[in-house]
Amino acid sequence: MMRYRDFEKLPDGLPCGPLNKISDVPGLTVGHHTLRREEPTILNTGVTCLKIPDVIHSPVSAATHVMNGFGKSLGLVQVDELGTMESHVYFTNTLSVGAIQQGGVKVALKERPDMRSYNTVVMECNDGRMSDIAGLDVTPEMAALALEDARDDFDLGSVGGGTGMICFGYKGGMGSASRIITVGDQEYTVGALVQANFGRQDDLTLPGKGLRFGDRQGAEESGDGSLIMVVGTDLPLMPHQLKRVARHACLCVGLLGGPGSHGSGDIALAFSTGLRTKSGPAIQTRPNLVVEGAAMSALFRAAAWSCAEAILDSMLTSPATKGHRMDVASLADAISH
Amino acid sequence: MMRYRDFEKLPDGLPCGPLNKISDVPGLTVGHHTLRREEPTILNTGVTCLKIPDVIHSPVSAATHVMNGFGKSLGLVQVDELGTMESHVYFTNTLSVGAIQQGGVKVALKERPDMRSYNTVVMECNDGRMSDIAGLDVTPEMAALALEDARDDFDLGSVGGGTGMICFGYKGGMGSASRIITVGDQEYTVGALVQANFGRQDDLTLPGKGLRFGDRQGAEESGDGSLIMVVGTDLPLMPHQLKRVARHACLCVGLLGGPGSHGSGDIALAFSTGLRTKSGPAIQTRPNLVVEGAAMSALFRAAAWSCAEAILDSMLTSPATKGHRMDVASLADAISH
Amino acid sequence: MMRYRDFEKLPDGLPCGPLNKISDVPGLTVGHHTLRREEPTILNTGVTCLKIPDVIHSPVSAATHVMNGFGKSLGLVQVDELGTMESHVYFTNTLSVGAIQQGGVKVALKERPDMRSYNTVVMECNDGRMSDIAGLDVTPEMAALALEDARDDFDLGSVGGGTGMICFGYKGGMGSASRIITVGDQEYTVGALVQANFGRQDDLTLPGKGLRFGDRQGAEESGDGSLIMVVGTDLPLMPHQLKRVARHACLCVGLLGGPGSHGSGDIALAFSTGLRTKSGPAIQTRPNLVVEGAAMSALFRAAAWSCAEAILDSMLTSPATKGHRMDVASLADAISH
Amino acid sequence: MMRYRDFEKLPDGLPCGPLNKISDVPGLTVGHHTLRREEPTILNTGVTCLKIPDVIHSPVSAATHVMNGFGKSLGLVQVDELGTMESHVYFTNTLSVGAIQQGGVKVALKERPDMRSYNTVVMECNDGRMSDIAGLDVTPEMAALALEDARDDFDLGSVGGGTGMICFGYKGGMGSASRIITVGDQEYTVGALVQANFGRQDDLTLPGKGLRFGDRQGAEESGDGSLIMVVGTDLPLMPHQLKRVARHACLCVGLLGGPGSHGSGDIALAFSTGLRTKSGPAIQTRPNLVVEGAAMSALFRAAAWSCAEAILDSMLTSPATKGHRMDVASLADAISH
Repeated sequence: MMRYRDFEKLPDGLPCGPLNKISDVPGLTVGHHTLRREEPTILNTGVTCLKIPDVIHSPVSAATHVMNGFGKSLGLVQVDELGTMESHVYFTNTLSVGAIQQGGVKVALKERPDMRSYNTVVMECNDGRMSDIAGLDVTPEMAALALEDARDDFDLGSVGGGTGMICFGYKGGMGSASRIITVGDQEYTVGALVQANFGRQDDLTLPGKGLRFGDRQGAEESGDGSLIMVVGTDLPLMPHQLKRVARHACLCVGLLGGPGSHGSGDIALAFSTGLRTKSGPAIQTRPNLVVEGAAMSALFRAAAWSCAEAILDSMLTSPATKGHRMDVASLADAISH
Repeated sequence: MMRYRDFEKLPDGLPCGPLNKISDVPGLTVGHHTLRREEPTILNTGVTCLKIPDVIHSPVSAATHVMNGFGKSLGLVQVDELGTMESHVYFTNTLSVGAIQQGGVKVALKERPDMRSYNTVVMECNDGRMSDIAGLDVTPEMAALALEDARDDFDLGSVGGGTGMICFGYKGGMGSASRIITVGDQEYTVGALVQANFGRQDDLTLPGKGLRFGDRQGAEESGDGSLIMVVGTDLPLMPHQLKRVARHACLCVGLLGGPGSHGSGDIALAFSTGLRTKSGPAIQTRPNLVVEGAAMSALFRAAAWSCAEAILDSMLTSPATKGHRMDVASLADAISH
Repeated sequence: MMRYRDFEKLPDGLPCGPLNKISDVPGLTVGHHTLRREEPTILNTGVTCLKIPDVIHSPVSAATHVMNGFGKSLGLVQVDELGTMESHVYFTNTLSVGAIQQGGVKVALKERPDMRSYNTVVMECNDGRMSDIAGLDVTPEMAALALEDARDDFDLGSVGGGTGMICFGYKGGMGSASRIITVGDQEYTVGALVQANFGRQDDLTLPGKGLRFGDRQGAEESGDGSLIMVVGTDLPLMPHQLKRVARHACLCVGLLGGPGSHGSGDIALAFSTGLRTKSGPAIQTRPNLVVEGAAMSALFRAAAWSCAEAILDSMLTSPATKGHRMDVASLADAISH
Repeated sequence: MMRYRDFEKLPDGLPCGPLNKISDVPGLTVGHHTLRREEPTILNTGVTCLKIPDVIHSPVSAATHVMNGFGKSLGLVQVDELGTMESHVYFTNTLSVGAIQQGGVKVALKERPDMRSYNTVVMECNDGRMSDIAGLDVTPEMAALALEDARDDFDLGSVGGGTGMICFGYKGGMGSASRIITVGDQEYTVGALVQANFGRQDDLTLPGKGLRFGDRQGAEESGDGSLIMVVGTDLPLMPHQLKRVARHACLCVGLLGGPGSHGSGDIALAFSTGLRTKSGPAIQTRPNLVVEGAAMSALFRAAAWSCAEAILDSMLTSPATKGHRMDVASLADAISH
């Protein structure tokens, strides 16, 4: 399947990692569990899991930003209070977050059977246009199934939590991209993983110079839906710095021509595998970077543009699809170059 | 069972409603589903539901405040974005919020079968000291069971979501209280419902003049746990005003002598049944009060003190209890007057 | 002077008001006091005042959002707590906010001599590249001078608080635009006033189809600076709704190709002249719209795109300028069509 | 002058530093500039400066929390964005924050003459009951005068920014206290400096067992006013941890019996001299503590109770005073033991 970069260089000027996926951040992998059914009603739903190595025992530094809170994602409160995340990041449909929270707890209990408290992070978008969402067909077990599927070179588009997405009136899905930034004289990777389900068809602009719309074909939609943006990096960042990164990641909506929409849960989560809370002594000393000035600006640039590219790829890699309440065209069929 | 007011008048100077419970706010009722078991491991857990009439069709004005976010409560993001709540308020244990989210969705689907998006509100405290929490024994169906039990003169203490609570080293639970305030020349009710599971034994102070500790008996605890404060009123309030009320409700912790604790999820939710979003036309005109100055100060006072009194009653109405990892004494046995 | 719309229709699809300025919102006017000097050091600074009729006696509904808080604007805390603004909105340079706060207090004292408390709102951008900012040449009296200059058809570009701005490497300044939205069957105006001093030259994209860069000429800048976005409307909105509008206004940065920058104070303020707190009885009943769904999405669209257009106009109406530390070219000289 | 601890041990169980003032934190000192006048109108106002060594060149880690934002304090936005503070902390009256901002800029320009951007932090309470506040008698120069007066064993009570305060109906002022906490096997100091101007007379409770009210004498007040809580420590803390500390410091209001008040600007600022951003290379490695669990709970306890004790001392050290609109009694005359 083609990706946006196969047609067009994005204008941010930063290099990508080798896979141009969040898995370019060392250790991160992604898995999917997809649920498709045609009878008696159409299902296009599922679960995606961003696996963070050892995160249950050794939480990563993290923060969130809510650009538009018409959403039901779980686990944000504790992430923002403690500045740490002790969970893999799950993605599913709006009504099934509770099922995956139950599944995420079971995943954690396997690793820490004596655990009494655990903050599962579940992000969501609404796939009720493409899938019979009221059937509540996602079960707790699917959290583990998505986790087990985790790999470096994971699929993009209409898989896992992305199966029922619609984006800018085209079929959307899971998207991913990455950027390399240099801080001091060392290189770090910034990766994005998005669940893209937002935007009005005639708002979409195609960054760069070569790509044009042919017959747009997309559906006239309200722009409601949701956008989940997850940004991971190996650059050691404190939680308040990650909050800044999360806030700026949301500019990807504008970079693609969108002004936001009332009914869209647009939520960003940023984390660093470079700053971890090891279990053990109550106090520990460890390295701590001062990332300011040009380095922080590069981070903002990497976050916003890798999310924008991930959104574009979520569409380009998704085929035209027949849904529960509507059918949706593919962006790949609507552009020419 | 005795309540604090049977011994002692609280110093806030505001009158209580007839039941001195959140059900003094017209229309509000509370139900419990309690789970107790002695074998093979001890269970002391359950679900409480604060039922708000017609809330699924006609959301109430609402807002939240997180004083200490070591907690896993669900649904806060959307409440704060839209300023509305479309769910009854459920209370359960930390690891079971997902099960009750699933149950809350089912409750809502019964009333609105064509629904594609729904924001269940589930608050939680950790009962892992009193109950084998890792068994995940709370099921989605218990949301409906708690809801069906809803009544005006509901039980306080070790029932429903309060079954496994520990508060200031004594047995805690669900507590409730109310205050009447006068705004303009009209009376309104402010009610509190708390799930009280926080505080260190030697921090507790008993408001008023007559009540003293005898043999304190309480357990030496870290003070971790959690405190959920829900404040409801029939005074029409806009969401940003309710956020102020939620923020000030948290002062109840200080009013009882507590300085807070790292591992406590201390979260407040305030809502008004007096300002609703009716389904129907996209624009509607309706009355809107300006509540400022003395009226807003009276609201803060009513919220903070009714939560404080609710916490005290959650302890006084809870008997000494045998738990999964520890046994806990009752405050009623520790005070004299 | 040409404005962007003279070359190119913007893609948002919403109509503008007659002046395409914030003064299309009934009652709003804008005045400038400009400070220019060539000797002994170059000054390019000043004060702009957005005059809101009767605001000192009758505060407007308001809220703010900080996208990137590297800024020193004053008065945001109280606006966000009370949801009201009792001040005209002043714009000046970073180091002079205190002088204008003093001037704003004096303006208010003239109208309310018995006043003991007053929250002046002063927004700022840093003009230290174009102006000898350390001279602290802005005085309190200039608040009143800018206010007295207020008019409907006010100047754009390098005047008042916009005199020393640099935007996307070109000369920036004060910009303004407006949109008409229909809610129910009634029309309302959304107006933007920006102080535009941000962005890297090679990030700027020109919305629409006809306009191209010729010789770009702009300066290579870090992108630091700041962007103040003020959005006013006559649509009655509650403070929590205005906060959503302010948050979405910030997408204008992305709509023009920008990913944000560490050293930029990017702050939005939204207010409604349609919802006021009249002095008088502590409680008042008055109309209150439910603005949701499509109406709220239209508001987001109007806010983000009118800010984007205002930024473009702030550049197009600003001539090439000689500054304290650098000279800056005009965007008008860099584009062709 | 007597302090609370001369009568009564506070119940938090933590030891104080040698002076029981914020200056127990190594390096911190406090200075005052007091403005008193009887003719033609009464003035009781001034400026206090908390001097942080080398802060203009080497910002400290910092964060703020607004419990009730009816206040006009300056500089909070940038502190919260960057997690750093580059200013001494000034305290003055509500209408004079701009004058002291101008003075604070001048103080900084002396140390860094090439500076183009600077974030002065000015906190405020309203002394308009005790002082003719509309005269705007505080001048920019008083920032430097207060700074120059800085010393370890500084005065408490009716001096500097505390000259015109009223607290719980008694004469209030500047107060200070400190606590020693042990993290790992090392001792750190937590210090509080408050500007106390809030609370209703009949709400005040006296912590501990020995102290009682005689003739209360205090004025019946609305409870409006304001409370500024500044907490400093040498324990290295990241900004998100300091935000938690600031949030919990506000519980001091409840610990003294207060439920908050509409017209009170209750704002907390926490900072750590143990984590600094040195100018120099864009990236630096330095020690970083993990402060969680019991250590964080001890911090909350130290912050809330040192603020509570500082408030009590601000009253006990303030004599009965004749004011512009009212006279106020001293708490010292109202208690017996």
